[in-house]
Amino acid sequence: MNNNFFTVGKSFVRKDALKKVTGDAEYACDIDFEGQLYAGVVRSIHPFAKILSVDTQEAKAMPGVHAVMTSADIPGSNSIGIIVKDEFVLAEDVVRRIGDAVAIIAAETPQQVQEAMQCVHVEYEILEPVFSVEKAMKEDAPKIHPDGNIMIRKDFSHGDVDAAFAQCDVIVENRYTTPMLSHMFLETEAGIARMENGIMTIYCCTQNPHYCRNEISRVLDLPMNRVRVIQTTTGGGFGGKLDVSVQAHIALLAQRTGLPVKMVRSRTESTLVSSKRHPFYIDAKTGATKDGKVLAFEAKMVSDTGAYASYGPSVASRAIMHFMGPYEIPNVRGECVLVYTNNPVAGAFRGFGAPQAAFCHEGQMNALARALKMDPIELRLLNAHKVGTITSTGQLLEDNVGFIETLEQARDKANEVMISKTKDTIVKKNGKGVGCMWYGIGNTGSANPGAAFLEVLPDATVNLMIGSADIGQGSSTAIAQIVAEELGLPYESIHVIAADTMVTPDGGATSASRQTFVSGNAAQQAAKQAKATIVEVAAKYLNVSQDELVFRNGRISNACDPKVGISYADLMKMAAAQGRIPVGAGTYNPRTIPIDPATKQGSPYEVYSYATAIAEVEVDTDTGIITLINAVSAHDVGTVINTAMAEGQIEGGVVMGQGFALMEKVEYKNGLITNPIYSKYLIPTSMDMPKIYPLLIETDCKTGPFGAKGIGEPSLIPIIPAIVDAVEDAIGIRFNDLPITPADVLRALRENKANKNEEDKK
Amino acid sequence: MNNNFFTVGKSFVRKDALKKVTGDAEYACDIDFEGQLYAGVVRSIHPFAKILSVDTQEAKAMPGVHAVMTSADIPGSNSIGIIVKDEFVLAEDVVRRIGDAVAIIAAETPQQVQEAMQCVHVEYEILEPVFSVEKAMKEDAPKIHPDGNIMIRKDFSHGDVDAAFAQCDVIVENRYTTPMLSHMFLETEAGIARMENGIMTIYCCTQNPHYCRNEISRVLDLPMNRVRVIQTTTGGGFGGKLDVSVQAHIALLAQRTGLPVKMVRSRTESTLVSSKRHPFYIDAKTGATKDGKVLAFEAKMVSDTGAYASYGPSVASRAIMHFMGPYEIPNVRGECVLVYTNNPVAGAFRGFGAPQAAFCHEGQMNALARALKMDPIELRLLNAHKVGTITSTGQLLEDNVGFIETLEQARDKANEVMISKTKDTIVKKNGKGVGCMWYGIGNTGSANPGAAFLEVLPDATVNLMIGSADIGQGSSTAIAQIVAEELGLPYESIHVIAADTMVTPDGGATSASRQTFVSGNAAQQAAKQAKATIVEVAAKYLNVSQDELVFRNGRISNACDPKVGISYADLMKMAAAQGRIPVGAGTYNPRTIPIDPATKQGSPYEVYSYATAIAEVEVDTDTGIITLINAVSAHDVGTVINTAMAEGQIEGGVVMGQGFALMEKVEYKNGLITNPIYSKYLIPTSMDMPKIYPLLIETDCKTGPFGAKGIGEPSLIPIIPAIVDAVEDAIGIRFNDLPITPADVLRALRENKANKNEEDKK
Repeated sequence: MNNNFFTVGKSFVRKDALKKVTGDAEYACDIDFEGQLYAGVVRSIHPFAKILSVDTQEAKAMPGVHAVMTSADIPGSNSIGIIVKDEFVLAEDVVRRIGDAVAIIAAETPQQVQEAMQCVHVEYEILEPVFSVEKAMKEDAPKIHPDGNIMIRKDFSHGDVDAAFAQCDVIVENRYTTPMLSHMFLETEAGIARMENGIMTIYCCTQNPHYCRNEISRVLDLPMNRVRVIQTTTGGGFGGKLDVSVQAHIALLAQRTGLPVKMVRSRTESTLVSSKRHPFYIDAKTGATKDGKVLAFEAKMVSDTGAYASYGPSVASRAIMHFMGPYEIPNVRGECVLVYTNNPVAGAFRGFGAPQAAFCHEGQMNALARALKMDPIELRLLNAHKVGTITSTGQLLEDNVGFIETLEQARDKANEVMISKTKDTIVKKNGKGVGCMWYGIGNTGSANPGAAFLEVLPDATVNLMIGSADIGQGSSTAIAQIVAEELGLPYESIHVIAADTMVTPDGGATSASRQTFVSGNAAQQAAKQAKATIVEVAAKYLNVSQDELVFRNGRISNACDPKVGISYADLMKMAAAQGRIPVGAGTYNPRTIPIDPATKQGSPYEVYSYATAIAEVEVDTDTGIITLINAVSAHDVGTVINTAMAEGQIEGGVVMGQGFALMEKVEYKNGLITNPIYSKYLIPTSMDMPKIYPLLIETDCKTGPFGAKGIGEPSLIPIIPAIVDAVEDAIGIRFNDLPITPADVLRALRENKANKNEEDKK
Repeated sequence: MNNNFFTVGKSFVRKDALKKVTGDAEYACDIDFEGQLYAGVVRSIHPFAKILSVDTQEAKAMPGVHAVMTSADIPGSNSIGIIVKDEFVLAEDVVRRIGDAVAIIAAETPQQVQEAMQCVHVEYEILEPVFSVEKAMKEDAPKIHPDGNIMIRKDFSHGDVDAAFAQCDVIVENRYTTPMLSHMFLETEAGIARMENGIMTIYCCTQNPHYCRNEISRVLDLPMNRVRVIQTTTGGGFGGKLDVSVQAHIALLAQRTGLPVKMVRSRTESTLVSSKRHPFYIDAKTGATKDGKVLAFEAKMVSDTGAYASYGPSVASRAIMHFMGPYEIPNVRGECVLVYTNNPVAGAFRGFGAPQAAFCHEGQMNALARALKMDPIELRLLNAHKVGTITSTGQLLEDNVGFIETLEQARDKANEVMISKTKDTIVKKNGKGVGCMWYGIGNTGSANPGAAFLEVLPDATVNLMIGSADIGQGSSTAIAQIVAEELGLPYESIHVIAADTMVTPDGGATSASRQTFVSGNAAQQAAKQAKATIVEVAAKYLNVSQDELVFRNGRISNACDPKVGISYADLMKMAAAQGRIPVGAGTYNPRTIPIDPATKQGSPYEVYSYATAIAEVEVDTDTGIITLINAVSAHDVGTVINTAMAEGQIEGGVVMGQGFALMEKVEYKNGLITNPIYSKYLIPTSMDMPKIYPLLIETDCKTGPFGAKGIGEPSLIPIIPAIVDAVEDAIGIRFNDLPITPADVLRALRENKANKNEEDKK
C-alpha cells in the first residue's frame, strides 16, 4: 500500500509489553489501600424463585462485618444493563438464575466475608424454571420477565427467496448448532473502590470504563463526574468484561462504609456469573445454479440468551446483518430470535453472533461446493463481495473490499505449505478446509463514538488521552502509532493515558473490533487540531506554504526541498516562545445509516473487514483426536498499523477458533454450570497450537485512520468453518454441531461404518 | 454590567473550601508512600566561595543512607532558572550565596539525614563577597557571575523630559526605598517523588507545575512526558513557589535510589533559600503645571537581585512598564537596574516590582498634591488614564479603563465611612491617604499561554482539565464559573482537574494575575468547541436556528420562545444516541506587541487593571504605633467572576500591603537572613486587620472571559502608598522608606520636634 509511512505498519513493541513480562503490571487484585475491606456476594442458589425475605441481622452482627446490603439499600437505580436495563445490581423480588446477587457484604478479612455470607438467610419460593428455548417459546411457559420470554426477534429479507429457490439447480439444507462458551480470560473480575477527593474511584479490569462509570453513577445516585473508573491492567476480556461485574457492588459498599472495598472473583464465581457466548441453533438453506451462482439463502437462528439481555440484542443485530456471508446473493431471508431462559446469561463474546453465523454460511458454501463438485474457493470467488457490490441492505461497497485477495492469497499460501494429505496412513487422515467471513467494524447501526485529547509538549513529546481500554489487544500501541504518524513524531514520543474516565474522554467499549478504527480516528482528529498550530509556526519559519510541509520522524521540512527543514524539538521551542500550545480534542463516530424497518435497507457499518482461512487437520481415527496442523488466515484489514500485533491477533484468533471448533463447551444442567474451571473446561494451550500463517491484505480504507479497519474479532471467525470442512475432507464425515470432540469423531466413524455395512449388506 | 449572567459574578463556594476547613485537604507533607526515604540538602555556609572538594564518603557509609549526590551525579543539565539559567541544582565550582545546595542526601529517617549532612565535608576557598549594589556596580568589584554584576538594565523614555521639566511650575523630587520581603506562605516547600508506571512523578506544592516539569526533565535527562508534576494543595505562594524548590532534588534522589523520596523544608530553610521581594532604591522627579497637569516624570530604580536571576528580569520589565503610573504624562524617562550580589536571591513576589514602582509614583503624586495644595484625588482625575488614552508606549486604551471610576467610588465611600479625623486626641492622630495603581495582566510582552481540555458527560456534568495551579487564590473556582456560564450549566456541574502535567495541558505560571484572564479564556475556548456539538444537536431538535438558542442553568431554549426548550441532561442523552461527544481543547495567549528597542513603542500587556485605595490610620505619638483603621480599595477588574473571591483577594491584598507598609522587612547581614521565622519576621494577623471596604468596579473588557481582567496582585498595591500618605496626613511627616515602624515614627517625631524647636529658637 502506502510505503511512505514511517510509523504505521511497523512492529513497535507494545506500550504494555515490558511491564507484563517483568511482572510489574498492576492488575486490580494487586492494588491494596490502607484500611481496605473485602467484599463478597450472596448469590441465588435457585434458577428461578421469588424472594420472600432476606434476613441480614445475623450477618451484620458478625465480627469484622462493616456492611451487609440488599436491594433496599441502593441509593440510586437498581436496574442495569448496557442495552436493556433488565438486570439488577441486587435482586429485588425475584431471582432468575443461579448466581443472581441477593446481598453484598464488606468485612475486614476474606474469611469474615465467607462466614458472614453463610449467615445471610434468604427465604425463597421456588418457581417453575425454564431451561430450553423450546419450552421458553411455548405460549404457556412461565414468564421469566414480565413482557414474556422473547428477548428480541430480528428478521431480514431481500429479494424473492421462495421464487429464487424454485429456480435453483442445487439446494443444500443443514441444521447447525454451536455451544455456549466461556471467555476463560486469565484474570478474573476484580476491583477496588474508594472515595478519593470526593470522587468515587473504582480501579478495576474492564473493557468498558465509561459505560461502567455511567451505570455506577446511576446506582450510587452520583453525578457522572463524581465517579471515576480507572481501568487497571486487564488480563483478557473477549467481551466478558463489557458488563458491569464487581464494580457496582464494591462502589456501593465503599460508599456505605466510607472505606476502600476490594473484591476479586474466584474462577468458579467468575465463570458462573459472567456472560457467556450465545449457543445458536440455525436452520439454513442455500440454493444455486449448477454453475455455482448462489441465488438464494435462508437462515433461521434461535438462541438461548439466559436470564438477562446483556449484549444479546447486539448479538441478534450482528447475526442478522452477517448471516448471508460476504457474498452477492440476490435473495436472502433470515430470522434471529433470542429467548430468555433460566440458564446462564449469554452476552458479548468476540464476534457477537458473527462466528455462529459464519459457521453456518460457510458450512453451507462448503456443502454447496461438494454438491456442485466445485472447488470451494472457486465457488466463493464466483459469489464474492468486491468493489462495486451492493449488499443485501443496499449498501454500495465503494472501496476497500479485499475479500477476493484473501481467497487468492490464502489459497496460494495453502498450496505452498499444506502437503500433508500425501501423508495419510490407515489410522491418520489428513484434510484441508476453507472458511471465510466478513465483519462490520463498530456497533451495528447504533452510535459508538470515541474521543481523544492530545498535547504536544515543548520537547516534542506527546501526552495522548484516550478513553479506549487496552485489554491486551494493543489499542494504546496502535493509536499511538497513528498519532505519531499524523504528527510526524517517533512512536516513542507518544505517551498514552488510557481508560481513566476522569481524564480521558469517552472511548466507548473495547468491542466490535472498533478501537483502532474509531478511537484511532478520534485521536487522529485530535492530532490534526494540534498539528494545525505547529503547521502555522513551521510554514512561517521555513517560509513554505502549509501544504508543502512534510512532518516525518521528528523533522519538519519542505517537500520540494528536503534540505530546508527544522527538528521538531527546535520548532516546538519556537512555538512555545510564540505562546502556542498545540492541543487537540477529537471525536469520531462511524457513519452508518440505520436499517429501515420497512425496506430493510441501510448501511449498518461504515466499513467491513474480510478474511479467508484454510485449515489443515489430521484426524486420528483410533482416538478420534483432531489435530490442527496448519492454519493459513488471510485478512483484509485495510492498512496494517502494527504488523506484529495484527499477526498476533490472527494467531490468538486461530487458537481461540480451534477451541471453539474442537474443544470448548460450557456444560450446564438445571441452570448450573458444571465445568466452571480450567481443569474441566478445556481450552487450547501452547501445546495445541498449529503452525499459523497469518496473511495481511492491505486495502485502502478511505475512512479509517491511515486506512485501517479492524482485526480483533475477524481473526477468530473463518478458522472455525475451515476446521470443520477440513475434518470432512479428512474422514468424509460432516459435523454441523460444535465442538467436534474425539468422542464425536469416534461415534460418527462408528455410525458411518455401520451405515456402510448396512449399505454393503443391501 | 451584564446582569444576564447566571453564574458569573455569583459568590459560589470555592471548590477547595470544604476540604480545607475540614482538614481533609492533602498537602505535600501529608503524603507518604511505602518505603519512602527522606531527603536533605547540604548547603553553602559561605556567601561567596570556591568549592575545592566535596567528600561524601563518610556520609554514604552511614546507616540508612541510600544516596549522597553532588553536581557530578546529575544525569542531565545542572543549570536551571525560569528566565536566565544561571542557577544550579547542585553547586559546581562556586557557591554564590549562603544556602546554595552543594549535596543532597536520601536516608531512611529524617534523623539519619541530619546526621549524614554533618558528614559531608566541603572544602571551600573563601572569595571576597559583595553585599551592596553600590559595591557590586563598581568597575573593580568581584564578579559574581562571569558576565559581571549587572543582571539586567532596562530603560524607557518618551517625549522630551528635560525640556518638559524646564516648563514645570512645580517639581517634587524624592528618594524611595522599599525593603526585601519574604512571602511567609503558611506551608513551606514540600514534595515527594517516585516512579509510577515509568513516569517520574512529583507531588509538590507549586505555582508553576509545567515549568517545573520542563526543568526536571532537563535535569533528569528524561523526556517531558516521562515527568509528571502533580500540584498538591498549596498553602500560599505569592510568587515564592514559582521557582523549582525541592522538586529537582527529590526527583534526582528518587531516580537514583528507585524509591520514593520526600522532603519538607523547615521554616528556616524555606526562608533562607527561597526567593525574596526585590528591595528597591528609587530616585524620582515629577513636574507639573500650577493647575496640576503633570508634564514630566523620571525615575531611576536600582535593586539588589541577590546571587541569581530567578524572576528578576520580569521584575525589571514590569517596573519599567509601570513606573509612570496610570497617568497621561507626555514626557517620561525611567531606568531600572538589577544587580547581582551575594545576598539572598530576590525573585517573584506579588506584583513583580509594580508595588515598589507604585509606592514611588503615588508618593510623588501625593507630594505634588501637597505642593500644589490640590486635593490628591482631583490631581489624579486630572491626569488619569481613561478610554482613549495613549500610553507612553503608544498603546491606545480602547476600552475597559475604569481608573476614574475607582477614584470616584473610593472617594465617595471614604467620605461615607471615614469620620475619625474628628476623633484626634493629643496623643492619637488620625489621617487619610490615597494610593492608586495600574497593572498589566499577564507577562510583560512575553508569551504566556494557557490551555484546557473539557468533556461534557452524558448527564450534563463536565470534566474540565486546566493546567493552572490554584494556590488558594481560587482559579479553579473562577474558571469553573466561566465554563459553566459558557456552557449554560450550573456551577456545581463542573469538576475541575487542575495542575497535573500528565493530564492537564500547560496553564503557565500562577503569577502576573493571569489565570482568570488567560486560562479562563482558554477554558472558554474549550467550552465553545464542545458547545458547538451541543448547539448542532439542540438546534435540530428544537428546530431553532443556532444563534437563537439560549444555554442557561441546565436548560437549552429558544430565545424567541422560551417555552420551547429541553433540559440539558435530556439533550445530552440525545447527543449520546447520535454518537456525539462534546469535547474541546482551547488555548489562549495574550495579544501583546513587544516593545521596540529603538522606539520604545509597543503593547506590553493586552489589558490593564486599575485601582484606588484610601487608607485611614491612627498614629499613637506616644508609642509610634500606626493602626490602619479603615481601608477602602476600589478595583476595576473588568467583569467580576466571583464576588466573594474578588473581595477576598482585596482583603488579603490590603493586609499584605499593610505588612509591606508598616511591619515587614527581611533583615540580613553578610548574606545571612537573621529573622527567618514568624516570631522575628512579623506579618499582620487577624488582630491587625482594618475594616476593609472592597469596591468592585466593572468595566467591559472585550478580550477577557466574559469581560474579566485580574485582581490577584492589584489588590496589594494601592494600599501601600495610601497608608504612607495617611501617616503624613496624621502627623505631618513624610516617610519614603518602608516599612514605617514605631521606632521610625518615634524617631521622626523626635527629629521633627527638634527641628521645630530649632526653628522656634530662630
